[in-house]
Amino acid sequence: MAENAVFVGNKPVMNYVLAVLTQFNSGVKEVSVKARGRAISRAVDVAEIVRKRFLPDVDVKDIKISTEKVESEQGEANVSAIEITLVKKE
Amino acid sequence: MAENAVFVGNKPVMNYVLAVLTQFNSGVKEVSVKARGRAISRAVDVAEIVRKRFLPDVDVKDIKISTEKVESEQGEANVSAIEITLVKKE
Repeated sequence: MAENAVFVGNKPVMNYVLAVLTQFNSGVKEVSVKARGRAISRAVDVAEIVRKRFLPDVDVKDIKISTEKVESEQGEANVSAIEITLVKKE
Repeated sequence: MAENAVFVGNKPVMNYVLAVLTQFNSGVKEVSVKARGRAISRAVDVAEIVRKRFLPDVDVKDIKISTEKVESEQGEANVSAIEITLVKKE
């Protein structure tokens, strides 16, 4: 698993794109983009914008989906999650 | 690519879960769950609910993300897309 993770939430998509670009520019080879629930769509946007608009030498290495349990005042709920691992080509 | 596709839109998630279950019960080995834009999160929900709640012998074979061009009255726009290929284990 990549140790360099960007967690995508409800902020504008370009905030997360910038976070990913910053990590790659600092020299790491892999960045994983993670999100849960409705932010999953935004995580896909982040990965696509990074690759198509800014870093064409970055590829999708792996995409994992999973179900996580979230505790709330109403009890436990299941929420879907995604992890998109981006890797810089040699 | 699987010829059996379920396109996830804005209806309740269980509609699409049922569509996937129906395809598998008709005997096909692979079903691909597709979505664009904000429906991407729902497509991940569909895949997770099918596997975790209904068909434990179904695995995620592949997940692809892409960017599609959409024509609208305001001109061309880019939208992210996902394709989750589910496969029945032998």
